[in-house]
This record gives sequence, structure tokens and C-alpha cells, in this order.
Amino acid sequence: MTEAQWAVPLTRRLIAELLGSALLAATVVGSGIMAERLAGGNVAVALLANTGATVAVLATLIALLGPLSGAHFNPAVSLVDALRGRLSWTDMATYSIVQVAGCCAGTLLAHAMFELPIVQSSAHIRTGAAQWLAEGVATLGLLLVILGHRRSEDAPWMVSAWIGAAYWFTASTSFANPAITIARSLSDTFAGIRPADILGFVIAQVAGALVALSLSRLLFAPLNASGRVRRSVSSPRSVESPGVTAERADTAR
Amino acid sequence: MTEAQWAVPLTRRLIAELLGSALLAATVVGSGIMAERLAGGNVAVALLANTGATVAVLATLIALLGPLSGAHFNPAVSLVDALRGRLSWTDMATYSIVQVAGCCAGTLLAHAMFELPIVQSSAHIRTGAAQWLAEGVATLGLLLVILGHRRSEDAPWMVSAWIGAAYWFTASTSFANPAITIARSLSDTFAGIRPADILGFVIAQVAGALVALSLSRLLFAPLNASGRVRRSVSSPRSVESPGVTAERADTAR
Amino acid sequence: MTEAQWAVPLTRRLIAELLGSALLAATVVGSGIMAERLAGGNVAVALLANTGATVAVLATLIALLGPLSGAHFNPAVSLVDALRGRLSWTDMATYSIVQVAGCCAGTLLAHAMFELPIVQSSAHIRTGAAQWLAEGVATLGLLLVILGHRRSEDAPWMVSAWIGAAYWFTASTSFANPAITIARSLSDTFAGIRPADILGFVIAQVAGALVALSLSRLLFAPLNASGRVRRSVSSPRSVESPGVTAERADTAR
Amino acid sequence: MTEAQWAVPLTRRLIAELLGSALLAATVVGSGIMAERLAGGNVAVALLANTGATVAVLATLIALLGPLSGAHFNPAVSLVDALRGRLSWTDMATYSIVQVAGCCAGTLLAHAMFELPIVQSSAHIRTGAAQWLAEGVATLGLLLVILGHRRSEDAPWMVSAWIGAAYWFTASTSFANPAITIARSLSDTFAGIRPADILGFVIAQVAGALVALSLSRLLFAPLNASGRVRRSVSSPRSVESPGVTAERADTAR
Repeated sequence: MTEAQWAVPLTRRLIAELLGSALLAATVVGSGIMAERLAGGNVAVALLANTGATVAVLATLIALLGPLSGAHFNPAVSLVDALRGRLSWTDMATYSIVQVAGCCAGTLLAHAMFELPIVQSSAHIRTGAAQWLAEGVATLGLLLVILGHRRSEDAPWMVSAWIGAAYWFTASTSFANPAITIARSLSDTFAGIRPADILGFVIAQVAGALVALSLSRLLFAPLNASGRVRRSVSSPRSVESPGVTAERADTAR
Repeated sequence: MTEAQWAVPLTRRLIAELLGSALLAATVVGSGIMAERLAGGNVAVALLANTGATVAVLATLIALLGPLSGAHFNPAVSLVDALRGRLSWTDMATYSIVQVAGCCAGTLLAHAMFELPIVQSSAHIRTGAAQWLAEGVATLGLLLVILGHRRSEDAPWMVSAWIGAAYWFTASTSFANPAITIARSLSDTFAGIRPADILGFVIAQVAGALVALSLSRLLFAPLNASGRVRRSVSSPRSVESPGVTAERADTAR
Repeated sequence: MTEAQWAVPLTRRLIAELLGSALLAATVVGSGIMAERLAGGNVAVALLANTGATVAVLATLIALLGPLSGAHFNPAVSLVDALRGRLSWTDMATYSIVQVAGCCAGTLLAHAMFELPIVQSSAHIRTGAAQWLAEGVATLGLLLVILGHRRSEDAPWMVSAWIGAAYWFTASTSFANPAITIARSLSDTFAGIRPADILGFVIAQVAGALVALSLSRLLFAPLNASGRVRRSVSSPRSVESPGVTAERADTAR
Repeated sequence: MTEAQWAVPLTRRLIAELLGSALLAATVVGSGIMAERLAGGNVAVALLANTGATVAVLATLIALLGPLSGAHFNPAVSLVDALRGRLSWTDMATYSIVQVAGCCAGTLLAHAMFELPIVQSSAHIRTGAAQWLAEGVATLGLLLVILGHRRSEDAPWMVSAWIGAAYWFTASTSFANPAITIARSLSDTFAGIRPADILGFVIAQVAGALVALSLSRLLFAPLNASGRVRRSVSSPRSVESPGVTAERADTAR
């Protein structure tokens, strides 16, 4: 964990993760319900609307909450941050619990807004090697974008553009997030996933994230004068926090 | 009200609010009419077009008129500004009247452009606890974005991206604006709302805005060295005006 | 005409206007043909595609060619520039001729790419007071954005977002450009307009542009210390050229 | 080749080209498969989804990998870079081989994710003068954007907006890339092209790129004080590398 992140108290960071995760999940599930209701059976039109809403809210939430908590909303992202020594393992665990709780709360909120049974269990089958491969690729790309982007102001659009594309080019519609995966099992709607299928998705997501971490060292690690990867204890820009770094700005302003 | 806002004369600010509110409402109502006419019964396609037009024009109007009036176009936003001591209560009342007048004028303009009866009364039922919850969530998010964004140049895309997402993930298609709500009751088209349903929507919107104001203090208020929220009379960036601050630039350039 | 614009030789500016007008018209007409062919009768889907392509190419062309010629591609824009004393009347006439020629060439190019008769005459009726009102509103908004935006790097997205919204919320699908109007009469396809209907559209467009010029003085003209509009011979940022100012950068870099 | 580009070792640049080309092709082919499956026969809806995914991933990859390799992913772009003396002919050849390999790998990855036969041969006929003209126009515009844009941070959106528009306004749906063209011949799906039709497309693409190179000198070459094109050995911004220049930042940070 970097000095900068200490500047934002843990409580505020957790509120940010909770709120962001809830609004993200409410958008994913809610727009799926709305889209399916209105699309008259054309699933492509429904998924277009679902994609647009997700991309828009994700970009907004990263720009809004990134300066507070890093705007992870995703245990796979927090895990990689912990592996890079930028988040303590205790904080990583707390982040993950809050992310799952937030995503589940957001799913229930979506049900309430659409007058559906608040708690549901999805029957949507999503399993098999092809789906897992897709989740791996989607999460790999997500982490590469997070680890490799150069300007913090680009994180909102780059992260959400990747997720929007991956909704379509991966066969699994890119969950790419263990917390969202768990939460979506609570919704027997457009965005749902059968509880039995969670584990396979989460393993694939974590695997994709770990491959991205290795690949990011190959691509983005700082080089020394002779062109070799430096062994450095400092934290270069290219391995920084996802959205934006939590800044001391909160106290300084 | 901050010193900066005094730099733009009230008349100019009111013209900006009037024009912006009118063009916003004309877009919401007009694109709804066009979309429904062309969509051949696929409501999702119609709402996609309605969303795209709204998002595009909202972003443009905030960037264009934000430096003049703050680009509220929304009594709920002006109310929060007044509660934060950044708009006098007199100006807040004037703003609100002008916003309602502008939105109504824009609705009539849309009818004229599409050769419909100029004044109509909507029969579109939008009521019930789920709809009100949705309006509360939509307005809460809108105000959080307005109160919490860090760079004024991000306001256009963040505000409109939130609204675009909320068109889909809230069951009410996110009116999130009392002036627009009143104006839409004058149109018996795609975007309409029954006059009897206005009050419920407006109460939900104001409630959402007030919750956002509290939440924004928890999330964005400046902290002192020991990590507690500062009690400060200065106006930190994080509690600034919506779009962009009215600048003295008009006279200085 | 400002000193800055002299930096780019007229020939280069005219090539930029010619190329930009041609690519813009080719996109408007070509994407209309493609969209109608593929949309299976759903006109809303076709117009969504037509809108997306137009918005994307317009933003790109303004960013690319704005620094050379101002990226007008539109006689109504050049007319307003001349009225503001920023373009000589001779250059304004030359610009307009080149814009019409470019748009016509682009239309023919679209026909060639889609294996249609190269020269056509549209039978698409677009006339009547409602359509003219729509064209007036669309062009008024376009010019307000051009005259009022504050940062030149915002011109590409603001201009194209306005046009994209106006495709949907005005009943005429927002031609907002006399050169495009003339060129579209040469295409008996989705984007066409009957030659007999050109005059009404052009008059409405010019009227909208003139209203915008007046309104922009009310909204954006610099103020003196006592809050009145200054009578100034200098050219403030708020009344600058559309896309970006032609810069001396070409020679200086 | 400029001094700056030497800063990133060739191996890292080739990994970037390989990864970017693979993810780009996986998106083009994969989103085509997904879109066709879901669109219920409405090809316009399918192409909208295909366009959206391509645009989003292309912008992300240019922003992510541009600082490493220039983010060509396209032999026509590398060819023009070599003709401008900014890439050695050896490196240009290596780039091209890696781009073709990456695009083919991405296509196979898409098949694997969608449980289709990994290696296929397309039967999709795309030939004739109109298609070739379309490919020429699409590639010409792409190169003009790459050669003429002024700010490196604009490259991601300008390049992808052009490609997105050209998907619709050119009759060929804008391949505009020999590596993608070859790779798409390996997929008998929405995005495919018959192997026999590759050559015509590639010749048209190269022709369009060469015309763009000439045209870019006319439009963007630096001028001397008397307004004539300077004969200069220095490398002005307007003839720089596509995405962003490979920076020494990797070592310096």
C-alpha cells in the first residue's frame, strides 16, 4: 500500500467501494431486466442496451470514486493490488467482502425497482471450457488496461470500453469480476448465472488476472539504461492503482 | 453564492437556464416522438435512440452553458446549491421558475416540429413505490456526480453518462428532474407522464437529492490532518457547482 | 479574417474544405444506403446507424482539418464567420462553392461504392412549416455550439453530439447545412431530399444561423466591469472559428 | 526510425503488436459471431454491435500499446511508416509478420471461445471494383487520420471513430488492414472473406495508404515563411507515428 492511499481513511474507502459496487450491479442487472422487457425478443438489441448502460455507469463510477478507493469494485483487481504490495492483505480481504456485499445489495435494489421478488436464484446455465476461456480473456484484458494505462484520466473510458467490447466478443458476455458473478447468481433475469456455475467463472477470472500480472511486467515494467527490466522497490506509474490513485488532495484541498 | 458566480449577470444566467432547459426538453420529447414513429413497435430500439439523443444534447448543453449559469436545468440541483449556500434562495426560486418555463416551452417546440397538437395532457401512468424508488436512486446518483466530480471538464460526460445509464437501469427511465417531469406531463407521447403522477415523482427526486447531499459529505468533504471531516467555511472543490463554475472569464478574456 | 488564419495558405484551406465536405457527405449518404439495406425495414435501426456514422466522422474531420480551414464544411458557418468579420466575403464565397462541390462529389462517391447509378435525383419529399422550423432549430443550435464553446479541443465532440441529437429530436433529421442539402438532392436513397425542397431548407438554415448569431452576443459576448456587453474590436475566444483556429503551428513546428 | 522509438526494445514492441493484433482480431470476429447469433436476422443490429465492440477495443488498444510499439496492428500503417523513414525496412517486415500472426491467432481464439471449429475457411464473397474502391477510401481516411492528427492523446478516439464510421459508409465494411483481411479469411462467420478475395482487398488498401501519404504532404507538411512546403529532414509532429510515439518514459519513469 502506498503512502498516498493512507491519506483516505479506510472507512471512506470502504463506503466508496460499497456504493460503487452496488450501483454497478444495480445497473448491470436492472438494465438487463429493462432491456429484455422492451426488446421484443431481439436479444442483440437487449444486450446493446445492457452494454451501453454498463459502460456509461462504470466510467462514471471510476471517475467519481477512483480518487477515494481506487474504484476496484472487483476482488480480482484488489487481489492483484495486494500481490503488487499496494494493498495490505487485510485490506484486500475487507475490500472483497464489501465488494460482494455491495454487488448483492445492488442486485436486490434492481429487483425492488422493477417490482420483482427481491431474492432470487438464477437458473441461467453458464459453464464449460469455452465460457471459462472467455472469462479468462476478459479478465486478462481488464487487468492489462488497469496495470498498463499511462494517464489516470484515461482509466474511466479505457476500462469501460474494454468491458463494453468484451460483452460482445467473449462468449460469456464478460463478467470479469467475482463479486458481480456472485451477485448475478441472485437474479433469475437476463444477467443471471446459476449458483453452481460461479466457481468455474471465479477460477477463470483469477487465472486471467494472474496471467495479466505477468504479462504486464513483460510489457510495462520500467527498463534500465541497457534495456532490461529494472528490479526496483519504487512504484512506477505503470503498476499503479486501477482508476486513479487515492490522493492526499482530500485533506489538502 | 460564490464571488465567481456574481461575475455573470443574473439576466444572462437566466437566459442560459431558459435556453438550456428548452433544448433539453425538446430533445427528450422530440426524440421520443421520432423514435416511437420509426421503431416499428420495438420499444427497446426507441428507448436506445431516446437515450442517445438525450445524452448527447445534455453533455453539449452543460459544456456550453455551464460557465454561464452552472447548467442546472433542474430545480433539484438548484435546491442543493441553495442548501450549500452557493445560490441565494431568491435566485434558487427564480432559477426554478425559469427551468420549468424552459422545459415546458421545449416540449411545445417538439410538438410543433412534429406537427402534433401543441398543448397536450399525458395519459402515461407512472406511479407506485417501485417507480418512486427508481426516481430517488436516479436523482441521488445525479447529485453525487454533480457534488463529487473533481475536474469541471468531466462534468458534461459524467452527468450525461449517469443519466443515460439510469434511463435503462431504473424502472422509471430516470426523469430525475422536477422541471422535466412537469414539462413531460404536457406531452401525450413516448416521454409523457400523467399530471396526477407528478407529485410522487418530484417528492422522490427531492428525497434522492437530499440523501445525496448527506452522502456527499461522508464521501467528499475535506478532511483535516487526523482524518476527520473539517468544519470549514471555505468552499472546497468537491462541493462546487454542477457543470462548471461561472467564471469571470467572460469579462477577463 | 484574423491574422492567424493567414498562416494557412488559401489553397491548403480549400483542399481541406473540399476533402472534409466530400468525406462528410459520403458518410451521410453511404451509411444511409448501407443502413437501409441491412435494417430489414426498421427505420429506427437504420437511422441509429446513420447517426452513429455521421457523428463519428464529423468529430474526426473537425479534429483533423479544423486547424487548417476551420472545418466548416457548411456555407451557413462560413456566412456567420464572414458576418463576424473573420472571413472575407470573397473567401466566404470560395469556401461555399468548394463545400457544395465537395458534398456533391462525396455523394457520387457513395453511389459508386454501393454500385448505384452515380447521378440520381431524389424523390424524398421534405417540406412544410414543421420541417422548416426543425431545420431552423437544428442550425441555430449548431451555430450556438460553434460560437459559444470555450475550448477548441471540445469542438469535435460538441458539434457532432449536437448534430447526432438533432438527427432525432428535429423532425427533419437535421440537415443544418446548405451544401449537404444540395448534395443530398442528388441521391434517391435514405438520405435524399427532393430538389424542389432545397430552397425552403436553405432559407430555414440561414435564418437559424442568423438568430444564433444574435443570441450568441446576448450569451457569450465579453462584458465590461459594470456587466454590460463591451463594444470591442478585439476577437474574444467566444466568437472564434468553429473547430479550431487555423494556427501558425504549421510553420512553427 | 526516430531516436525515441529505439527506447523501447524491439522484443517488447513485437509483443505489443502481437497482443494488440490478436485482441483486435478476436474482437472483430468474436463480436461478429455473437451479434449474428443474437440479432434474429436483423443484420443492421448485428453490424451495430460489431461496430461498437471494434471501436471500443481499438481505442483501448491504441491508448494502451501505442506508447510501446506505435499500435499499428496493420501492415499498411507500418509500410507508410517505413516509407517516411520512421521504421527500418527490416522492422517493417518483422512488424507485418507479427501482425498477421497475431490477427490469425485472435481469430482462432474467437472460434475457441464460441465453440466453433478452430480453423475455418470463409466462403463470404467480397470482390469487385466497388468493394475495392471502398477499401481504398477506408484505408486512405485511416492513414490521413494517423498522419494528420495533432495531439497524440486524440489518436485513440480519432482512429477508432474513423473505422467505426467506415464500417457503415463504405460498401466493404472497412477492413482497411491487410493483416485483418488475411485473418478474416480463416473464419466462415459474419466477419469472413473468401481467401480468393484477399489479394484485391490488400492491393486496394495499399493503394489507399499511398494516396493518403501524398495527400498528407499537401495538407499537413510544414510550411516555410513564404507559405511553401519545407524540405526538411526533421520529423515534424504532423508526420509522426500513429497512436503515440514510443517514449523513453519506460526507462525514465
